[in-house]
Formats: sequence, structure tokens, C-alpha cells
Amino acid sequence: MIGQSGIAVKTVSRASVQSVAELAKYGVATIHEAMGRVGLLAPYMRPIYPGAKACGTAVTIFAHPGDNWMLHVAAEMLQPGDIAVLGTSSDNADGMFGDLLATSFRARGGVGLVIDAACRDTAELRDMGFPVWSKAVNGKGTVKATVGSVNTPIICAGALIHPGDVVIADDDGVVVVPKARAAEVAAAAARREDKEAAVRKRLAAGELGLDVYGMRDMLAKAGLKYFEDEAAFEAEAGK
Amino acid sequence: MIGQSGIAVKTVSRASVQSVAELAKYGVATIHEAMGRVGLLAPYMRPIYPGAKACGTAVTIFAHPGDNWMLHVAAEMLQPGDIAVLGTSSDNADGMFGDLLATSFRARGGVGLVIDAACRDTAELRDMGFPVWSKAVNGKGTVKATVGSVNTPIICAGALIHPGDVVIADDDGVVVVPKARAAEVAAAAARREDKEAAVRKRLAAGELGLDVYGMRDMLAKAGLKYFEDEAAFEAEAGK
Amino acid sequence: MIGQSGIAVKTVSRASVQSVAELAKYGVATIHEAMGRVGLLAPYMRPIYPGAKACGTAVTIFAHPGDNWMLHVAAEMLQPGDIAVLGTSSDNADGMFGDLLATSFRARGGVGLVIDAACRDTAELRDMGFPVWSKAVNGKGTVKATVGSVNTPIICAGALIHPGDVVIADDDGVVVVPKARAAEVAAAAARREDKEAAVRKRLAAGELGLDVYGMRDMLAKAGLKYFEDEAAFEAEAGK
Amino acid sequence: MIGQSGIAVKTVSRASVQSVAELAKYGVATIHEAMGRVGLLAPYMRPIYPGAKACGTAVTIFAHPGDNWMLHVAAEMLQPGDIAVLGTSSDNADGMFGDLLATSFRARGGVGLVIDAACRDTAELRDMGFPVWSKAVNGKGTVKATVGSVNTPIICAGALIHPGDVVIADDDGVVVVPKARAAEVAAAAARREDKEAAVRKRLAAGELGLDVYGMRDMLAKAGLKYFEDEAAFEAEAGK
Amino acid sequence: MIGQSGIAVKTVSRASVQSVAELAKYGVATIHEAMGRVGLLAPYMRPIYPGAKACGTAVTIFAHPGDNWMLHVAAEMLQPGDIAVLGTSSDNADGMFGDLLATSFRARGGVGLVIDAACRDTAELRDMGFPVWSKAVNGKGTVKATVGSVNTPIICAGALIHPGDVVIADDDGVVVVPKARAAEVAAAAARREDKEAAVRKRLAAGELGLDVYGMRDMLAKAGLKYFEDEAAFEAEAGK
Amino acid sequence: MIGQSGIAVKTVSRASVQSVAELAKYGVATIHEAMGRVGLLAPYMRPIYPGAKACGTAVTIFAHPGDNWMLHVAAEMLQPGDIAVLGTSSDNADGMFGDLLATSFRARGGVGLVIDAACRDTAELRDMGFPVWSKAVNGKGTVKATVGSVNTPIICAGALIHPGDVVIADDDGVVVVPKARAAEVAAAAARREDKEAAVRKRLAAGELGLDVYGMRDMLAKAGLKYFEDEAAFEAEAGK
Repeated sequence: MIGQSGIAVKTVSRASVQSVAELAKYGVATIHEAMGRVGLLAPYMRPIYPGAKACGTAVTIFAHPGDNWMLHVAAEMLQPGDIAVLGTSSDNADGMFGDLLATSFRARGGVGLVIDAACRDTAELRDMGFPVWSKAVNGKGTVKATVGSVNTPIICAGALIHPGDVVIADDDGVVVVPKARAAEVAAAAARREDKEAAVRKRLAAGELGLDVYGMRDMLAKAGLKYFEDEAAFEAEAGK
Repeated sequence: MIGQSGIAVKTVSRASVQSVAELAKYGVATIHEAMGRVGLLAPYMRPIYPGAKACGTAVTIFAHPGDNWMLHVAAEMLQPGDIAVLGTSSDNADGMFGDLLATSFRARGGVGLVIDAACRDTAELRDMGFPVWSKAVNGKGTVKATVGSVNTPIICAGALIHPGDVVIADDDGVVVVPKARAAEVAAAAARREDKEAAVRKRLAAGELGLDVYGMRDMLAKAGLKYFEDEAAFEAEAGK
Repeated sequence: MIGQSGIAVKTVSRASVQSVAELAKYGVATIHEAMGRVGLLAPYMRPIYPGAKACGTAVTIFAHPGDNWMLHVAAEMLQPGDIAVLGTSSDNADGMFGDLLATSFRARGGVGLVIDAACRDTAELRDMGFPVWSKAVNGKGTVKATVGSVNTPIICAGALIHPGDVVIADDDGVVVVPKARAAEVAAAAARREDKEAAVRKRLAAGELGLDVYGMRDMLAKAGLKYFEDEAAFEAEAGK
Repeated sequence: MIGQSGIAVKTVSRASVQSVAELAKYGVATIHEAMGRVGLLAPYMRPIYPGAKACGTAVTIFAHPGDNWMLHVAAEMLQPGDIAVLGTSSDNADGMFGDLLATSFRARGGVGLVIDAACRDTAELRDMGFPVWSKAVNGKGTVKATVGSVNTPIICAGALIHPGDVVIADDDGVVVVPKARAAEVAAAAARREDKEAAVRKRLAAGELGLDVYGMRDMLAKAGLKYFEDEAAFEAEAGK
Repeated sequence: MIGQSGIAVKTVSRASVQSVAELAKYGVATIHEAMGRVGLLAPYMRPIYPGAKACGTAVTIFAHPGDNWMLHVAAEMLQPGDIAVLGTSSDNADGMFGDLLATSFRARGGVGLVIDAACRDTAELRDMGFPVWSKAVNGKGTVKATVGSVNTPIICAGALIHPGDVVIADDDGVVVVPKARAAEVAAAAARREDKEAAVRKRLAAGELGLDVYGMRDMLAKAGLKYFEDEAAFEAEAGK
Repeated sequence: MIGQSGIAVKTVSRASVQSVAELAKYGVATIHEAMGRVGLLAPYMRPIYPGAKACGTAVTIFAHPGDNWMLHVAAEMLQPGDIAVLGTSSDNADGMFGDLLATSFRARGGVGLVIDAACRDTAELRDMGFPVWSKAVNGKGTVKATVGSVNTPIICAGALIHPGDVVIADDDGVVVVPKARAAEVAAAAARREDKEAAVRKRLAAGELGLDVYGMRDMLAKAGLKYFEDEAAFEAEAGK
């Protein structure tokens, strides 16, 4: 049940290492398209420094506002290549995560954090190269008083995430690929990139998307009318 | 009519190349002041990377939420030195623009994009040096199903923009100069910069704005009272 | 009285130079914790460039929306090592501060600005290395028509700040230390850093926070239940 | 020029009394549709009490943040049947309008206010039955220090409004009809209402929009697939 | 898969009529507590008129920004006692629903709508007594160009909702009860109400929650210190 | 110290009953003006039902996000005529207060609540006539795990409030009057109302504020220029 507290699942099934490695080659926008335009977290999730990039299997965390206890519980569940993903029981922007936890996560093999709350020690995290996507940066500290859960399904920034799913994050935001679809999506992303490379070449040479994609007829059917210049349009409008 | 769909005007009058070149020398804040403190877009319009700067003549785009079709139509209208400016029929933060369209825009001579929605592929755009000002960054893709317009007057981030107007954008935001005022505003900006250079020198030497601008009398008339220290103020307040 | 207009206090007591120098060694998050988790400004206050850092004694400014007159009055009150802090009588995001005022502030010894409104000329400020924390960046200029106050207590971004208090600001936000507590807080911050250094070492070596902080019993008492894997949890849930 | 200060135009051309009377029969949503889905102000503009409704010719006001001086200037320009519409030079939510100004506006024949800022004395305004649409309610008072303009074109909540245009406002928000289009739009609204009345009858009888509007083929072409039940869909998905 | 387009499932399993009837007796806050503090939609979902109340089985709708086509498809799936619930592929606040659709929904037996977008014709909906919970009210019309899905799992305002789940909505917001838990939650809600009635009586008689719930010891352990008056506290603080 | 946890002060000095009774006669906007335009809480604080009105002496509460324990502690401190006012250590919109606490508060003589978080059971509170001003309505429940403080100075919605201060709240928002100023402000409010009554009469008779307040000269000095009609302005502008 989404949002149940008091559960910590030690071992979960994860997407395969190969499929994670495949997906790591592509950006968030490409993977979102390759999945059929699904899987994105809300765009308020932003990297704490430009150029941040991470791809890993999710250890999911469910936490309460102003309380970061479950991040410590999650540290123990992290395996090399995991990315921690935290959702909350209600809207919160406290600084639940800083350089100490990042040190611990890294020591366990964790490759990043996606947190629907805030983080702090951002200068240190940038220096460490530990990537975090969050809704805010906030020096505000938290208590450790109320248990949530680790490795149960969560909703983070409007997306449903299961433990073991693949999470890819970069400058464009964060996308989640269900573990069962990882290989298939990686293949679709590869096909999409190939196709885009060909299109990019044509566009760079000055060809128009209108022609590359064959849109002219559809635009006409959809009602677009061309006018040579402003005078021509005004003449038509004034009729 | 603002917001009419289905119109694409091929050729529009533009501000002169010289006036654009003149305006390109000044920052957004200076031009806004030189115009008489008008012309700014809302401050939620931010560059996708620091140091972005663009100045060009507007090709205007009117689009619907979640639909980027008109950006392809606009590519054909772009002439060297143009900047694309997109307004929407209602609030939207989808990623309507990415590196493929940027490749196409650049091939046509486009120098940037101002979009009252979101863009994606931001790492690639930064690498390309293609500047974009947007309300958000978002991996979310869009459909091509409903026509809007190109080269009709639009409202973008609260500002009225006509095709051919000069749009200047930098780290401070975006400002629009009506094409008929371009030369006059460039001249006023030049005068302002000269004046500011002189003031800057005096301020750098430790003179106060109060004296440079002669504000002391006006402050007294407006009711400002000086107290030597906190004790003096408390004595007065406690009377 | 918070929010009274028309007062300019020339000289105020300030935290000692030594305590400011001590506090300057620590980050915002550390000082906030060292104070007992108080003193932070709201997290919407962000630096205008990454890596900005400032620590100084507050010259406080109370201003009205769209009016930056009091920043000029404040320039005269600035002493070397001061940081200007501005609160407003109501929500405003106009660009009240730019490179000319920064030039003046720097000439007077000012080390930065914290402004619950916007600033502009941000590229120039970045080039100058003059750090500003603000709620927005906005090219919008302001008038000089209505007086506020300088060096009276203000509320800035939800925090109460007295003239002479120590204000520390970095990538994590802004924190204020009441002048009377400056030495004590610096000492507590030092102790905290020492303790964190020891913990960091252990975490980096792979020890878990659960063990370092001795949390396992408390988690059990708070109701956290561990399951070996998803199957074990489902078996329990399905009972 | 949008946003120019210092102008007060005493007499402006207005939409005809008949066309205003015609438009007053229809709701905001209907008129917006009748115009071709244009003309709406941003949806953050809300009535201060449910059931508020107004339709009148616009006296436009351009004001600065925290300054309500121009509302007094506008009172003199109001003619019976006018609705005052205020835009600002930058984002502001101060309480610029209260029951005294409403008393004055009513005495001059004004029928309401649309203000891209806040109003106060809302209990009194409700008792008076003086309708206001605003972005906020706020007790905050304002100064009278800086001039704006009256009866020049403005942008209010993202819409361009000329003096004399027809402004219709109800529980759904606010729409503006350019004076030149008033009669035409009223006629289109009448046709739309007639058509809707017929459709409403059929829908009330249990007919489906799918059939009334003949959508089934288009949905199939657009790719919608029907499944008898969840099992059928899962069988298909699992193939 | 959450967010897949192009699916319309005609018949879905629903929570039993009895359990819906039981749940209809309780408010949103009570049911949320009875479930173990889970199941709430984000608090930005507000009723369009005070006193609105609905409880029904969900027909789920997945729609794209600015496109209300799927609401027409959903009308056909509605059975008496159903409540329509709409999530979108990205953030949108267009007026997707008005009195015509409400007429159709009511004719099919629909008892309300929960929409993570906007609705319009709110005065008519209030007069009809057709309750809607939405993120905004907006006269803005939509197109019918892109298919989404009906009766697939959706995320609406941050909550996961399956077709057939029970959705309860009132002045406090919206909560969803998974169909499998409906009977159990109704029973827990009943127990909670009984318990609350007893507590209410004691509190109304002047007893304190501190005593009714036996909190005094826990507060002391958690570190709360009582002081007789401000002087006593200051004496302690000044030590 | 603002934001210190763990303190509960049993008895505090309060503004006199007479001054509270005097202040209760006036609305929020009037009192804010009578104080010299200070004392307002941020306008996001809204009553949970229209027409809500309260005036009382503040029992202040400092609480942590998602934790309503201190509201129970505060119930014991309430004396007849008190209004509870709650600030938080960080931004939070959980439903900390409902009808049970309202029953308890009322039994102790409490007259209302101002909470910089959310409340729930709003239908019941409306039926009880127990007024609440909050930043949101939210069914979300809270824990009782971390202590805050009662009857220490707090910041609530951007305003500094001491225990015993007078808090007045109505449809326009919330204002706080420091206890030492209560009598003086009540007298100023009375004078202001008298003056406004006289002005209202003149405005109702059709006199203009321009004349009643003698603004015409000041407007001219401030640069306002009148034009007879649009043609006259265009002639001037086109010169």
C-alpha cells in the first residue's frame, strides 16, 4: 500500500546491471520518449548543480515532513549502483540530506539521490560530485522521530516508483523505467537516437522539419493558412 | 487579434539590422530603463545556462499547451538574426523545444528562443551555445495536433510582442523593444551607459549616491529622520 | 516597532569582529544546527551565482514594494565587514539592486546583500564577485518616492533580524545569529564540525549511521519492522 | 505604448450600450468560446464573493506596485456602465482598493473592478454588492506617490485590454471583448447558447456526447482501443 | 502502465455498493485516519462550492493538457454511483469540464468529478448541485485532438487511483480507498467516530487533551519544560 | 529566542480586556492603517469560511512540520478571550487542527485560531462557528512526536507576535497589535473610522477623491498629463 509506514524490506529484485548500463547512455528526454512519453517526475525536481547525471536502481524511501530518519535506514539497503529515491507523506522542503549522508551512501555504492524535499551542504555535494535532484535547497535540519518505510512503492514528484526500478536523472529532470521494461526501453531509446542522428544531420543542413517529417499536408488539413506578408493577412482579416 | 489560431505570415517587417546591432551592446536592465521602464517580460523567464545572451528580431509563435507543432512552422520563417518568441493559449510547462529544433533554428540563422513554456535537452543546448529563456526545464514531450499561429502579435510572459520587434535577453531576463522605437531606444541606452559610467567612477571612489544624486533634501521632505544611534532613537520613540 | 518607516539610525552596536571571523569559517547548515536549529531565512532566498559566500554584520533596511530609495540611505551606514539585509512592507520582486549600488556598497566596505526582493545586473555582479541572495532576478527598475527605514529590526524572508546581527550566507541559503549569541554559536559550530569530521570518517569507511548513532533500538521501539525481501513482506501483509 | 506612465485620457470610444447589454446575457466561458477561444484573463483572477457578475466597458488603469493613486484618477473617467480594469508595472498583491473607492466608483456609475493586485474591505464590498475580481485579498494599504496612466492600453493578468473594450466577469473568471468585435461576438454567443441548449437536452436524456458530436470514428482514427474489461486489456498488454 | 494512452476499458470491478454506502457516512479526514493516514490527494484540490460532498466508485481518466476528449469517452463508462477522476500527462489548468458534460455525467448516474485540471460553468454546476473538486476554475476551453485513456490506473494530485476504488470528497479535500480495503476502512472509520464522540464530550466539558490522551509524561520525556510566567522563563534563560 | 523549542509559559501578560473590546469594533484594514500600515500577516492567511471574524489576545504556539502536539499543550494555557496563533519551524501545510481541538479550545474560552499551516474538519468548524485563518485546508493528519513551544515570541506568516498581543482577523486577513499599543491603536482606529465616514458620504454624493483629498496639484507635479481624448494623446505622442 502506497504510504504505509513501518516497513523496511532488505532485499528487492532490481533491473539487470546490463539494462541499467544501456539506459545510462541516454538522456531523460530520450528515455521518456522511448517509453511512450511516460515516466517523468514533475519538473520542479532539479539537479543541485548543472551537468549532474545519474542512472541506477531505486531504493525507495517513504518519509514524513521534517524527518530524515528513513534515509539512515535506507543506507543499509543500498547496493552498488543504487540510487535513493524519497517521497513524503505530505509536501515538505526541509533539508533532509547533506554531506554526511552522501558520504555514507557513496561508501555503500549509492550513485545519487532523488528527493521530493530539500537537501543541504550543496557546495560539499558538488565538490564530492554526488548528484542530487530535489525540489529545493534548504539549510533546515530535521528530526528523527517518526518511522516511514524503505523499499515499498512510493509516489515521488507525481510518479509511481517501485524498488528496483531504473531511475535516470540529468539536467532535464528525472524519469523512471519499471524494471520489467528496462531492456525494452533501452532498445527503443537506441533506435530513437539513431533516428534522431539522421534527422539532426538533415536539419543542420537547412532542411525543414516540415519536410523531414512531412507535415505540410497535415497542417493544411488542420486549418493553417499561409499569408505572404502582414498586408495580405490584414486584407483577409478585414474582408 | 491576440490569440487567433491558424495564421502563418511568411514575411514581416523587422527592425533594422543596425538598430539591432546597437541594442545588442546593452543589457536588459539598461534597455528597460532607456525605454522608460517598460518592455520587460515577467521575471519567471530564466536562461537555461548562466551567461546566455541574445538580441534579435522576433519571429512570434502562438501555441497550445502540450503542442509544439508551430515551432516547426516557425523554423521556415526564421531569417538570420531572428529570435523565436513563443506564447501559449494557456499556462503550460511542457518541454516543447530541444536540440533537434535548435539545430534547425541555427541552420536557418536563428539566434535564440524565448518560450513561455519549457525546453529540454538543456545539456545539449548549453554545449551548442544555443540560448533559451523559458519558464521551466522539462523532459516532457509534446504532440503535434493543433495549429496555432506564426508571426502574429502575441503575449509572452505578460508582454505584448509583435513580429519584427527587437528582443534582448540575458542573465537578468528578457525585454522587448517595438521595432519603431529600436533606434531611439538604442540611442537612449548609449546615453544612459555613459551617464552610469561617470556615476560608477564616483561611487567606486566612495562618494555616496545620496550626494551624487542629490537626494538628501528629498529624503528629509519625505519624512526620513536620522538618529545618531539606537539609544537616541529609543529616547525619541519612548517620549 | 517592526515595519515603522522614516527612521535611519546611523550607528548601531555590532557583533565583535572576532566572532564574525569565527562564524565565517562555517557553513549555513552547520551554524543553523549549532544554534539549535533556528535562525534560517526561508529557502526561496537563493544566491545569484553558485559558490557565493558571505559573512558580516547586518545593516538592516526596510523598504516598500517597487522602491529602492533606502538602499542609497543604507550605503552611508555601511562599515567595512557589513552585509546589507533588506525586508519589504509587502511581497515584491522588483530589481531594487544592481551594479552601481554594488560598486557603492563595496567602496564602503560592504561584503554582500540579502534582499527579500530581486536584483539585476547579475552578470556584472558575478564578474565583480559581489554576492547577493534574493528571491528573484529581475531587470525591473524601481522608483525613489517613499521612505522606509535603515537599522531598525526587520523581518526578512520570515526571519527577525536586528542591526548588528551576524548574517552568514552560502549555497544553502542564509542564517542569522543574534549579536549576543555570536561567540557562543561559533564555539558550538566548531564543536559540531569536530564531531562531524569523526562521524564522516566512520561513514566513509562503510559504517552505517544506524550504528554510529545507535538508532536500531529506537527504530524498533518506533515500530519499524524489517522483512528479508518482498515476498516476506507480502506474506505478512496478506495474513 | 503599453506601460507608459503619466497619461490620463478623459474620453475614449466605448463599445455600444446595446452590444454590452447583449454580451451581459452570457457567461465568461460562452463568450470566450464565441470569440474563438481567446480573450481570457489568467485564472488566478477570482471574484471576492461567489455569484459576482459584471459586464461593462473598460476604463483602464496602469499602476505601480504598492501605489493606488491612479484609481482616484480613474474615478473621474468612469461613466455609467463602466468597469475599471487595473494592470501593474510589476507583480504586486497589495490591497489597492476598498469600500471608499467602491463608494466613489458606484456613485460615478461604475459597475465593478478587475484588478491584477489585491483588494480589501471585502466584507463591506460583499454587503454593497460591488463585484471585484482580483489576484488576492489583502488588508495591506498603499501609498500615493508615483503616477501611472488611465485609459491607455494595458496588460492585465496576461490579456491586452484597450479602453472601451467590453469586460465580462463571473464565477469562471474574466474575459475581454475588443470593442470592434462586441456585436459580432454577442451574436456568436447567442448562436452558441442555442446550440448548447439543444445538446443539453439530448445529453440530459442520456445520449452520449460521443454520438451527439459524432466522435467515435475520430477516436478510432486517433488510436483509441476499447477493451471489454480489465482482463481483456491485460491479455492484450501481456501478449 | 501509468500514463499509457489509447486504452478504454468498458467494465471494471468496483467496490461493493454497501461499502460505498458505509464510507459515505464519514468525512475525508476521518477516512484518511482510519486508513492509517494514507490516501489523500494533494490539498490544492478544492471543491468549487462550500459544502460539496461526494462518495463513489472511480471511473479513471487520463488526459493530455488542454484536451478534454477523454471526458466524453468516460461518460459512456459511468454507472450509477460512479465518480469520475481525471489525471493529466502534465500540469494543466484549462477548463476541461462544464455544465454540458455535467448534464451528461448526471444522466449516466455519475455523482461528481475530481479533476487535476480546471472546470468552468461553476455557477451552473453549483445550481445543479453537481460537485467538482479541481485545482482551479478557468473559463478556458479545450480541444479534442489527442487520445488518453479511461479506466486505467492514474495518478491524480499525487495519489494512485485504480478504476473501481472508492473516492470520498468533501470540504477537506479528496481521499481514495482501494476497493479491496473499502469494507475494512469503513469499519475502522466507524470505530474512530465512536471513539471521537466520547473524546469530544470530555473536551467539551473542559477536560484537556493532555489528560484525555495521557500526554503529560511523554511531553516531559520529550523535553518540554513549563515555566509559571515570562519572568520565570527569562530568569532560566538568563542563567 | 525566536524558534526555541521545549518551552511552555503558563501565564503571560495580556492586553487589557477593554482595549481588546475596542479593537474588536474595527476591521483588519482599518487597524493596519491606524497602526501606521504595519502589523499584517501575509495575505495567504485566509479564513476557512466567509464572514469569519475574531479578536483576542494571543496564545502563541511554535510547532514543527507535520506535528500538532503543541496545540494540545496550548489548550491548557487558553483563557477566555484568547486566540491561538501558530507558527512553524519550516513551511508546512498539514491539517494540524480539527473539530476536536476546536471543541477543547472553545471549552477553555478560546475564540479562534490563526495557523501558518492547514486545518481540517472545516465543515464542522463552520457549523460550530469556530473561526480559523490558515494557509490551506488539508485532511492530512499529524504526529505528536516533537516538542515546540507555547507562549514564546513567534513569527507567523511573516509577522512577529508576542504572547498577549491582540490579534484581529476577518475576511481581509489577520493583523497583530502589540499589547503595549492596544489602547493607542484602538483610539487611532476610531478617529480613522470617523474620518472615513465623512469622506464616504462625500464620495457617495459623487464628489471625487481627487477633490476630497486635494490631489490635483500633486498629480500635476508628479507628471500626470491629461488629454481630452485618444486622438489628442496620439497627436501628442506622434509629435
